[in-house]
Amino acid sequence: MALIVQKYGGSSVSDAVSVQRVARRIVETQRAGNDVVVIVSAMGDTTDELLDLAAQITATPPQRELDILLTAGERISMSLLAMAIHELGVRAKSFTGQQAGVITDAVYGRAKIVDVVPSRIAETLERGEVAIIAGFQGVHADTNDVTTLGRGGSDTTAVAIAAGLNADVCEIYTDVDGVFTADPRIVPAARKIDHLTYEEMLELAASGAKVMALRAVEYARRYAVPVHVRSSFIAALGTWISGSSDDPTILNPTEREAPVEAPIISGVAHDDSEAKITVVGVPDIPGMAARIFEVVADAGANLDMIVQNVSAAQTGLTDISFTLPEADGAVALHALTQVQGEIDYTFLQYDDQIGKLSLVGAGMKTSPGVSARFFGALRDAGINIEMISTSEIRISVVTRADSLQDAVRAIHTAFGLDADAEATVYAGTGR
Amino acid sequence: MALIVQKYGGSSVSDAVSVQRVARRIVETQRAGNDVVVIVSAMGDTTDELLDLAAQITATPPQRELDILLTAGERISMSLLAMAIHELGVRAKSFTGQQAGVITDAVYGRAKIVDVVPSRIAETLERGEVAIIAGFQGVHADTNDVTTLGRGGSDTTAVAIAAGLNADVCEIYTDVDGVFTADPRIVPAARKIDHLTYEEMLELAASGAKVMALRAVEYARRYAVPVHVRSSFIAALGTWISGSSDDPTILNPTEREAPVEAPIISGVAHDDSEAKITVVGVPDIPGMAARIFEVVADAGANLDMIVQNVSAAQTGLTDISFTLPEADGAVALHALTQVQGEIDYTFLQYDDQIGKLSLVGAGMKTSPGVSARFFGALRDAGINIEMISTSEIRISVVTRADSLQDAVRAIHTAFGLDADAEATVYAGTGR
Repeated sequence: MALIVQKYGGSSVSDAVSVQRVARRIVETQRAGNDVVVIVSAMGDTTDELLDLAAQITATPPQRELDILLTAGERISMSLLAMAIHELGVRAKSFTGQQAGVITDAVYGRAKIVDVVPSRIAETLERGEVAIIAGFQGVHADTNDVTTLGRGGSDTTAVAIAAGLNADVCEIYTDVDGVFTADPRIVPAARKIDHLTYEEMLELAASGAKVMALRAVEYARRYAVPVHVRSSFIAALGTWISGSSDDPTILNPTEREAPVEAPIISGVAHDDSEAKITVVGVPDIPGMAARIFEVVADAGANLDMIVQNVSAAQTGLTDISFTLPEADGAVALHALTQVQGEIDYTFLQYDDQIGKLSLVGAGMKTSPGVSARFFGALRDAGINIEMISTSEIRISVVTRADSLQDAVRAIHTAFGLDADAEATVYAGTGR
Repeated sequence: MALIVQKYGGSSVSDAVSVQRVARRIVETQRAGNDVVVIVSAMGDTTDELLDLAAQITATPPQRELDILLTAGERISMSLLAMAIHELGVRAKSFTGQQAGVITDAVYGRAKIVDVVPSRIAETLERGEVAIIAGFQGVHADTNDVTTLGRGGSDTTAVAIAAGLNADVCEIYTDVDGVFTADPRIVPAARKIDHLTYEEMLELAASGAKVMALRAVEYARRYAVPVHVRSSFIAALGTWISGSSDDPTILNPTEREAPVEAPIISGVAHDDSEAKITVVGVPDIPGMAARIFEVVADAGANLDMIVQNVSAAQTGLTDISFTLPEADGAVALHALTQVQGEIDYTFLQYDDQIGKLSLVGAGMKTSPGVSARFFGALRDAGINIEMISTSEIRISVVTRADSLQDAVRAIHTAFGLDADAEATVYAGTGR
């Protein structure tokens, strides 16, 4: 008997038929002898429809009211899912984030979970009932106001509830079979990864792998929640994410095969949603870089990679480049324009035609020759490199956007990740 | 400066444009120097759409989950309304029933309000903001579960919040100009009534007048909340409902004309949604009627009028007839069939082709000749009477359904209620 937390995204509950399909899966899990807690997102396009309604009223909705509006979405999906489970003869109750004890800060629209008090959920399980919890939402304890968690919110709810209940596993159901060595749409020979450490999954998620939200991985790592990313369409095992590459605690007593030995290289992630800003002609004096990144951060933009070229001695000027999400480009440019007089740079360059490729693997730092093989493969494929960034377990490069896919395939092959059989890809986004 | 509670039904907020229209009305009221609290129903067809979704999942949804599902409707309308008010430059916040302190019992689907603790609403008003509250919903304090109030729920929320805040008036916005001496669709010469006592409005609402829910009138009477039923389409005054016919406390400082003198007769209500059950051949011994009505009540059916004919001495048998909502007919018949052996009646008759007409007026009991004129008018119009029931301020009769409209017109004219000008009727139901 295990306590299993399952999370289903909006594409898994897009209509009544798919709600019933998910209900059958939940009931099977419970009838196999497990306690089951389910986190569910809003149905299919509900969130977009609600946003469209708001847009008809105002272009600048107060964020508090927008949060109240959007949380109507999970209210609908969670109650329908509870009804569908009930229809299969199993008792189920649905709970809002507030009722489930998901306590957040007061930052509407992108609230952070500060505490989880799932006493009602524990009581529900004790009565032998399935507990359904609205993902993506919480409550600010001081005001009793509803908040939403922003991007990746439902994954984070699932991990937080799993941590709060000390669950045996947090299953993230998605529309792919697990985490792959590369995006199967780009690399047909990509292989499903059986197991990743939190750190590897963090680097993959931060580098553009979309299968699980970065913040949810961070949460899982902090509270050591075993995560299992798997398909909602098939019963096969997906990818386990846990503390170490052969951590026995990740074993699911009913399903898990023998632990696999960790490969040096986990996989290749890519991201074509970033842009690059270059601040040209920055005076090469102390504090200038700090000031630039301060300005960008205050504007709410998330910096990713940063490169500063050596300054040309005769001019005393340098260029500072950084990447950030394309969506943050406009505010960052605007903020930097405001401080041109203060920083005294020459001009700004903006480039959204870039791609980022990252190779992630736990053994990388201690395995000589990884860098040599990495850059050699890119050279052989004729890929030009614009920026480089590394961590303990990752090498990232920025290339032209139109050569990104070739680069991903070249690296995937060079590191022996290609499988014999092609991976199965399902439609949809899985969020 | 007054504290005004306004309630808008689903037809007043059926789309973005009408939400904006309601927002303008609210902002006008606030800018005139008033504190404003708004109770809002779900938009137009939202409730039906949610019920349809549930029906695709199961024919027998758990009522707790159905309540959670349905309350998504007001969540959408209330947040959109707050956004629309904000767009007009006035701060507004929306609140669920739980947040507004609407405490109910645990009877999902038709919960009763047991307490109102609107401290957050009072704080919102103190900050000069408009408070928007979801109608139709509350919270069960022990479990923190969401409940819905059932039919007339939003009207009741409005009156309960007005009582809890000691508001100067509770304005019920609808799609007609107020309460009329008869349904203007049947009696074109019907006149708007300027003022009614709670008792008169209770009798009218109980007798089929649809303009305000009976339970909301009962609540208003118990807590002496001045109510103003008026059109959401025009600015004119509607119908005031308060403690006595010339109660000075009903004066709205900004709008109210001089108090009107109470007429003897308030108006004519009708109801064609009832059915009649006759239990034929009941042994005329003590306790039989009580047992019949006990059985019917236990089945959840609401009895209205009851008539027992004198028993025929030679048989020792009598017939007992009663009316009830058509919707309750099936369960009542089923329940009575189950006890035929016990009660030993001969057979049941069911008739849903009946109509009920009620004449309501405070002065009726003390005004001789009302009954004579009432029955004389029906006789002159050739209306056959099947049942009669009276109270202090009401006479009701049951007729054939197809003669109900003629009967209403005949009584309206006989009591001098006809106006010179025809009333204005708007489309829609106003609920």
